[in-house]
Amino acid sequence: MQTSLLKSALRGFDPYVPGLQPPDGEGWVKLNTNESPWPPSPKVLDALREAVDGNLRLYPEPMARPAREAIARLHRIDPAQVALGNGADEVIAMCFRAFAGAGTRVAFPHPSYPLFEPLCAIHEVRPAPHALTQSWELPDTFAADDAPLKFLVNPNSPTGTWADRATVRALVDRSPGVVVLDEAYVDFAPQDCIGLVKEGHERLLITRTFSKSYALAGMRIGYAVGPPGLIAALDTVKDSYNLDRLAIVAAVAAIDDRDYHRRLVRFVTEERAWLSEQLHKRGFDLLPSAANFVLVRPPTGHDAQTVAQGLKDRKVLVRHYERPPIAGWFRVSIGTREQHESLLEALLEVMS
Amino acid sequence: MQTSLLKSALRGFDPYVPGLQPPDGEGWVKLNTNESPWPPSPKVLDALREAVDGNLRLYPEPMARPAREAIARLHRIDPAQVALGNGADEVIAMCFRAFAGAGTRVAFPHPSYPLFEPLCAIHEVRPAPHALTQSWELPDTFAADDAPLKFLVNPNSPTGTWADRATVRALVDRSPGVVVLDEAYVDFAPQDCIGLVKEGHERLLITRTFSKSYALAGMRIGYAVGPPGLIAALDTVKDSYNLDRLAIVAAVAAIDDRDYHRRLVRFVTEERAWLSEQLHKRGFDLLPSAANFVLVRPPTGHDAQTVAQGLKDRKVLVRHYERPPIAGWFRVSIGTREQHESLLEALLEVMS
Repeated sequence: MQTSLLKSALRGFDPYVPGLQPPDGEGWVKLNTNESPWPPSPKVLDALREAVDGNLRLYPEPMARPAREAIARLHRIDPAQVALGNGADEVIAMCFRAFAGAGTRVAFPHPSYPLFEPLCAIHEVRPAPHALTQSWELPDTFAADDAPLKFLVNPNSPTGTWADRATVRALVDRSPGVVVLDEAYVDFAPQDCIGLVKEGHERLLITRTFSKSYALAGMRIGYAVGPPGLIAALDTVKDSYNLDRLAIVAAVAAIDDRDYHRRLVRFVTEERAWLSEQLHKRGFDLLPSAANFVLVRPPTGHDAQTVAQGLKDRKVLVRHYERPPIAGWFRVSIGTREQHESLLEALLEVMS
Repeated sequence: MQTSLLKSALRGFDPYVPGLQPPDGEGWVKLNTNESPWPPSPKVLDALREAVDGNLRLYPEPMARPAREAIARLHRIDPAQVALGNGADEVIAMCFRAFAGAGTRVAFPHPSYPLFEPLCAIHEVRPAPHALTQSWELPDTFAADDAPLKFLVNPNSPTGTWADRATVRALVDRSPGVVVLDEAYVDFAPQDCIGLVKEGHERLLITRTFSKSYALAGMRIGYAVGPPGLIAALDTVKDSYNLDRLAIVAAVAAIDDRDYHRRLVRFVTEERAWLSEQLHKRGFDLLPSAANFVLVRPPTGHDAQTVAQGLKDRKVLVRHYERPPIAGWFRVSIGTREQHESLLEALLEVMS
């Protein structure tokens, strides 16, 4: 890279590397990026096909209004409490641009979503990671941190662990800046925190995604809900037309098919229980998961990296980590029963 | 807005306001945002419908590789010389994030794309606008500016005026930082500057969009071409999966139908000539346009704002400006002959 033209904050920068996305149709058992095991609702696919027409020559509604209104109806809040992004990743970046001026600090637990640290470099803020306790809980220092912007992924990735509403409320109450609660995985958890937004907390934003429980990772739709003031701030820093016409249509149709969404979530949580039991039987350590994946550690005598590589050689993809404190663990997304059986079979080969 | 939580650089901030995007199907004659008068190629629509399937549950290829390769083939360059964005707006924002550190300066002519100034505030850099000369040409000060990042929209919007390749080459040669040449409208101009990228200029990026000459404003696809070092820098600051699966498909199919693209461009340039002549006959001042719009000033005795409002009352949308030096002018996108006749009819009523 021509580092002399790159801004100084990015010299020697380690960008975020997303999980491997192999070409479609090559028969991979893809359990590495927490996608849905089911396709999107057939009603979503029908709505999309119908929306493919000559109007694609026109810009989308800049505020993605139909999607904003559907999300507001879903959560029984006002549309002025909803902001949309090109995936939750854009929403997270918008939070940096709105609330974390250059030279300030952004706090987040570690380990958590590995995107936060590169976003700090890009936005010229100092990362303030707070190590989880040995039992994977939030350390006291996190709530005490006075950073103008904090992120909490809940349920957390890659641990799958989960903080309850009282813990989140206490965190928001103690934080002087904006707290962004990333609920990407919350549909698979016992409880969400939308109620805190309704209680009127002025510094809390909750982010959500259509990539997991709505099976639309390929369409890039994320959103934030919160008080109108924070939402307006996000809207001023988004790209002008950040959701394309088809993404808006997909979002509305996905929300409208609540029955499909509920069935998909139930399927995933049931498969999570089944897969967890199978892995436990085979001697794996597992963290209790409130998400659509499990973080696992192979039994003594087996190296996680070797196991993950052996799985990859058999066209089974999981996400392996090399940084402490999760070196030695890998994350397995919840798939279909058939995918799980392929995984278990491959594990048997790799570990024999 | 809760200004106490907003970062200080954004307090009192004026965000970019895109042109009005009324709901579809309400019969507007929409000549305000430089969209294509034709729908996308039927082959693009077919490809999109075919791509609406269960794979939408999976993330897109993070580098939008099929689109990158199609664009490289189109311009006969290497795929490592192409970066994609969620619309050219994201590509422009990526340039800010890669090359303009907080506290530095970003230079651009004025009047030009009104997005540059808000992006300066968002990225905490100082805007360095350079007023065009009275004959709408680039002032000497622009090439002489030593900002780490410069933008030149060519053909320019909203003027429609155009600088030739020699002028651009001289600008790049004199500029110590990155020069981004925004060729959003270049398919309607006599000449482009892709040749300069092939000559190997190390500090030149050219941005393009699918929103105008490919009739895909609704799909949000833009790109940059340039030296691999600058392209790699853009890729490190983009959102991880910034193009959705359907946008990637649309980009590839649109490039593959070169005949449709050529016919669309020819239609627009012919209609531009026809509309320009009609407006000239009616006493309007016009700037010579190399784009898919014309900037016009009503004859003496008619106020541009009143005329634009009168048109809007008749469901004809144009883009009116209130800031000097283009107060008193409005911009008309090139539409179909039928739309132009509606415009002329409405003008006759408004100005009688």
